[in-house]
Amino acid sequence: MPKPRKSRGKAALAPRRARTRLDTDERRAQLLELAQAAFANRSYDEVSIDDLARAAGVSKGLLYHYFPTKRDLYIAGLREAARQLMERTLITSTDLTPIERIRAGLDAYLDYATEHAHAYTALLRGGIGSDPEVAAVIEDTRVAYVERMLEGAEGSPLPMPAGRTPVLRLALRGWVGFVEHTSLDWVVDPRGVSQRQLRDLLVDVMLSTFKIATGAPLTRDW
Amino acid sequence: MPKPRKSRGKAALAPRRARTRLDTDERRAQLLELAQAAFANRSYDEVSIDDLARAAGVSKGLLYHYFPTKRDLYIAGLREAARQLMERTLITSTDLTPIERIRAGLDAYLDYATEHAHAYTALLRGGIGSDPEVAAVIEDTRVAYVERMLEGAEGSPLPMPAGRTPVLRLALRGWVGFVEHTSLDWVVDPRGVSQRQLRDLLVDVMLSTFKIATGAPLTRDW
Repeated sequence: MPKPRKSRGKAALAPRRARTRLDTDERRAQLLELAQAAFANRSYDEVSIDDLARAAGVSKGLLYHYFPTKRDLYIAGLREAARQLMERTLITSTDLTPIERIRAGLDAYLDYATEHAHAYTALLRGGIGSDPEVAAVIEDTRVAYVERMLEGAEGSPLPMPAGRTPVLRLALRGWVGFVEHTSLDWVVDPRGVSQRQLRDLLVDVMLSTFKIATGAPLTRDW
Repeated sequence: MPKPRKSRGKAALAPRRARTRLDTDERRAQLLELAQAAFANRSYDEVSIDDLARAAGVSKGLLYHYFPTKRDLYIAGLREAARQLMERTLITSTDLTPIERIRAGLDAYLDYATEHAHAYTALLRGGIGSDPEVAAVIEDTRVAYVERMLEGAEGSPLPMPAGRTPVLRLALRGWVGFVEHTSLDWVVDPRGVSQRQLRDLLVDVMLSTFKIATGAPLTRDW
């Protein structure tokens, strides 16, 4: 029956476009998930749209309908990864003390870095080069992370004098760099350092950095 | 006199190759300096070998004799920049106390980052992408910097218990990330933070990180 098969070509895009919103979202999520997995395990140049479309069981045309270029797909996957990271590291349980929430957030971060080691290292080591949009996604995530730390600190009973001075903001930005560099190094080769040791180091450095940047006495009272 | 001019073509490379070692080094240094300036102010793709050869007053052939590809020239320039940075930040004056030497070294680092702001930001934000050789030059410089800090700490009378544990090494690696992220942010927009404020923040975070990673009491005794 060649006729029905033929009609599944370009014309078949129309009914798909007319699907419900949920269907569209589901398809988009499926494509993003496949793309994330592909880009995580191969370099940008090695990933082909043909392979992705085949793996998703959709036409190349449909894939291009959602993501007009490979770069669009890559950046959408990156945004989704950043969103997941921010979501997973947001610990709001009121059963935990503020310091326990910080610890749990960092554990979630290190879990994420370990689980997505290849993508995590590839991305922070350059991604697809000096693409400004890629750099912006990474930088926005860092700024959002600093903002969250400032918010958490202001509302917490921790002995951390708050105040959003430029120096404090810069210091927390530096701490994010500390987290990225140590976790990258550690994910590649832990050299016997446990996740708990690294997490405790990150917590201690964050709290002492907070104190240094706000001029509070540098005592280990956490 | 067309004949003598003509003989300055490819054949002229031979006497140049036969120059003394000093001449060769000088020529190489001149080309590297020009390349560094060019790559500092324009993107990798925008820099042309033709322009560079013209600026140096040499033939393209001679330039390719020293640096077979544009990428070779870029990486050689990068290595030279890293060497200069390490040289400038090495403070050995015995007139200074160890803590003053650390301060002076960081001031030299921040001076360098400010003077070469364009190249510094371009490089640390991705350089020419995820080129493994570029990444290796940057990473080797970081490791050398950590090594130097460990050496300085071991021989110093600072109240810093030394010991090259994997945790201490990882922590200093993190501190290098702290320095890079804050200085990048600060070079682009200082937001009223003075170089002295940033330098003092970096010193304090380094010393507290050292103490945290070695389990020493966290007191501000520097």
